[in-house]
Amino acid sequence: MLDDQFHVYDTTLRDGAQQEGLNLTVADKLVIARHLDRLGVGFIEGGWPGAIPKDTEFFRRAQTELDLRHATLAAFGATRKAGVAAAHDPQVAALRESRAPVVTLVAKSHDRHVELALRTTLEENLAMIADTVRHLRAEGQRVFLDAEHFFDGYRSNPAYAIECLRAAAEAGADVIALCDTNGGMMPTELGDIVHAVAERSGARLGIHCHDDTGCGVANTLVAVEAGVTHVQGTANGYGERSGNANLFSVVAGLQLKKGKRVLDGEGIREMTRIAHAISEVTNVTPHTHQPYVGLSAFAHKAGLHASAIRVDPMLYQHIDPALVGNDMRMLVSDMAGRASIELKGRELGFDLSGDKEVIGRVTDKVKELEAHGYSFEAADASFELLLRDELAGERKRHFTVESWRVIVERREDGAVTSEATVRLTAKGERVVAVGEGNGPVNALDRALRAALEQTFPELATLELTDFKVRILEGSSGTGAITRVLIESSNAEGETWSTVGVDENVISASWHALEEAVSYGLLRAGRVPD
Amino acid sequence: MLDDQFHVYDTTLRDGAQQEGLNLTVADKLVIARHLDRLGVGFIEGGWPGAIPKDTEFFRRAQTELDLRHATLAAFGATRKAGVAAAHDPQVAALRESRAPVVTLVAKSHDRHVELALRTTLEENLAMIADTVRHLRAEGQRVFLDAEHFFDGYRSNPAYAIECLRAAAEAGADVIALCDTNGGMMPTELGDIVHAVAERSGARLGIHCHDDTGCGVANTLVAVEAGVTHVQGTANGYGERSGNANLFSVVAGLQLKKGKRVLDGEGIREMTRIAHAISEVTNVTPHTHQPYVGLSAFAHKAGLHASAIRVDPMLYQHIDPALVGNDMRMLVSDMAGRASIELKGRELGFDLSGDKEVIGRVTDKVKELEAHGYSFEAADASFELLLRDELAGERKRHFTVESWRVIVERREDGAVTSEATVRLTAKGERVVAVGEGNGPVNALDRALRAALEQTFPELATLELTDFKVRILEGSSGTGAITRVLIESSNAEGETWSTVGVDENVISASWHALEEAVSYGLLRAGRVPD
Repeated sequence: MLDDQFHVYDTTLRDGAQQEGLNLTVADKLVIARHLDRLGVGFIEGGWPGAIPKDTEFFRRAQTELDLRHATLAAFGATRKAGVAAAHDPQVAALRESRAPVVTLVAKSHDRHVELALRTTLEENLAMIADTVRHLRAEGQRVFLDAEHFFDGYRSNPAYAIECLRAAAEAGADVIALCDTNGGMMPTELGDIVHAVAERSGARLGIHCHDDTGCGVANTLVAVEAGVTHVQGTANGYGERSGNANLFSVVAGLQLKKGKRVLDGEGIREMTRIAHAISEVTNVTPHTHQPYVGLSAFAHKAGLHASAIRVDPMLYQHIDPALVGNDMRMLVSDMAGRASIELKGRELGFDLSGDKEVIGRVTDKVKELEAHGYSFEAADASFELLLRDELAGERKRHFTVESWRVIVERREDGAVTSEATVRLTAKGERVVAVGEGNGPVNALDRALRAALEQTFPELATLELTDFKVRILEGSSGTGAITRVLIESSNAEGETWSTVGVDENVISASWHALEEAVSYGLLRAGRVPD
Repeated sequence: MLDDQFHVYDTTLRDGAQQEGLNLTVADKLVIARHLDRLGVGFIEGGWPGAIPKDTEFFRRAQTELDLRHATLAAFGATRKAGVAAAHDPQVAALRESRAPVVTLVAKSHDRHVELALRTTLEENLAMIADTVRHLRAEGQRVFLDAEHFFDGYRSNPAYAIECLRAAAEAGADVIALCDTNGGMMPTELGDIVHAVAERSGARLGIHCHDDTGCGVANTLVAVEAGVTHVQGTANGYGERSGNANLFSVVAGLQLKKGKRVLDGEGIREMTRIAHAISEVTNVTPHTHQPYVGLSAFAHKAGLHASAIRVDPMLYQHIDPALVGNDMRMLVSDMAGRASIELKGRELGFDLSGDKEVIGRVTDKVKELEAHGYSFEAADASFELLLRDELAGERKRHFTVESWRVIVERREDGAVTSEATVRLTAKGERVVAVGEGNGPVNALDRALRAALEQTFPELATLELTDFKVRILEGSSGTGAITRVLIESSNAEGETWSTVGVDENVISASWHALEEAVSYGLLRAGRVPD
């Protein structure tokens, strides 16, 4: 573990979730937390227990379901209400009861916000800060403070803004994060203020920036130069308005450009994969331009530089893309290189190092499928099926589908029914089966399993646990393409993901469903014919 | 016109066009140039005449078809070839013949690039710079120089990098733009180098940044503080890899934050419209997060702030969005309170301030629907229909649906068909219609419009432009819930979004589809019965 000297503090699950159109379930939050832990961040802010029921649930489930290796969980909350003892404030109680090792309290430090938004006096606000910090410290939690609207507050009333920090530090807050809540700061002025505040407050400082001027990352880096030892940000720069400071760019800047080790472990080498895996969970289309981890971040339009690039690629790259798990790309290509195919194969238990020809065939196949909208980032099971087919030299499955049909109908009385029919052959036996469901995919799933249950009774324990749909923009003139990801699990608690792509959402779902069941049968030890 | 003291130099049509997937016709380039001129930039770099036939054509047509009020055109090109007189180099001749008032020459200033990419001597490179500048100046053109890979070159061999600048300045180049071609610089170091170079070279300096570290805008602003008086960038940050410095963020930062007037005229007040108009031409989806001009740049989600926003919106905004032609938007989300409902209503043109009872009913209804998985933050049209229903005291629609059915089938030959039937009554007339499509929703859309087209012929111009699906986790034991967002547009280019939620993806889609058509009819002036 890294020591406590420098904090990388992720707030994707709290402030990042304020992004327009981003809605995370508790399960989504748990998955994202695991990705962030893998990256090696020091702290993961999980949400606001008490205020948001989903977040209370997150902290409850995190105690048994999250096994973090690098990161510490933090609960976000507010200072106590005006005129109420911290010990009797139910909002504060929820923070205590979250059992998070760290509580990050948001506090007003801008005089006008105290008066207009909190509607209390400047003195009472100071007492609210000190009391709440002291109470939670006494209860055994570590406390950080987010000084909201700090920079605007400092410009409005610097003495009061500093007093807020001192109140928190004296009461036992370990870090005070200066928040550019409205995101309007420019680097030089922000650096000057951080420098002055560090001298005047004597407190350990952190920084929380937004990207409203396009300077969120630079502001964060400048603040580190001015003395902060705690940086906040979000995965992929998610957040309200123009987003928060992009944590991936911040950590890459600090670690790869400034030579400051800020992440625990070697997770930074997987940052590109982690960035894309998180965007699959949030269902926010990845920004191809994203620094370091974007699909285009190291893509070169070839041409006159090609020969020089061959002599020394570093003449045309600001870092080696492998440092963040990305690849240099010439022309329009995809993410898959031979090296990553070999690596992924090894991860799945297939040693391909001796078989350059298979690696070449798999790489070509993946490229071709990705050009049609496939993405294997979050669909290891589909990738393994593809790999097995290429190794075997033919497509092998446990059953052969003849046809399927699904009917969804809303009747005159308003009731909606979904009914599916599947015709297939398994172990030489032709079967026709129907299934009803609460939707077309559920009906197809039931019909498929009904058709197979005589031959493969173990399918009874297979469960479809998640289903994601992403609409990809089609090229002009054609319709949009739909990508469906299905997550399945078996009685042993193993999970796997499969992918299907088609312009028809039902066909795409069917494809992912068929692979989910095929892979489940492989896991159960069934050898395909 | 602004004087020559400070240059805003746009390179969208040249360096921006290097973006992966961006392909501009000559007509596209002319349209974009008009938009940039309207914004008030000082210089528009049109391309590389001679090297790229489309760009030669652009400069030819620009002479008669472009009537620029604010901007001056610049042609981009390279210094002469090694061992050839500038006057006899056909590439240089094309720059001369472009008749562009300004020529911007790209020159090597990094010793290793001279040796490995140009394959000539350091001395010859200096002669190539001086000769080409002198030749074009003698022919009556103004000359700027782009010092390619300058920062990497300065780190490798500072004396030689400075010599290149001096050679250009002494030969008559007006401005020397220092290019961070690989985009790897960080703000503080870049500022220090610019400062040192300004002192040592004595030349007028400019800056050309890329966004590979997420610091492209900040680097440009820091360079201005260090003394450059010429900034380069691209519309919407288009460009290779992670893109160029976003010119919109740069000019907003300089003019609105630093109080430096850098644009001619009042075009900055139309910047949001211009940014979106350019993205229509490039066919690159606008980045909703984009600082200043993005759709989300001034969108607020948190309900608890809404009451304070009503008192003073500037407490929660870093600038007045009207300064860049953008708007504050309130997102109706699960943290929505009465205050944000009232604000949202006002935004849509409904004054609810006098009607506390309606506000209460709408707030309750929104909360109830959001508990079932609805989200109105990206579905203004659905919210407006809900608001109208509550104001009218009843649900009003243009048609009544009796039933619908959709069949998706994969036949034995592998072909997939989607067919829908809709039964409804409009203006007293019962209609049954069918539709086929490339998927179930497309088939339902066609069947619905086929059923209504006799009664409402204007529906022919209504188009379903986007379709998003989000699967929400259901409570355990029940199926997942699906949320569908549909974006539609009409012949006037107006767009609106509707939402549908159901455990059945087809029912959810149908709901959003029905509201999309209802809202389209309202927009067309049709009053529901």
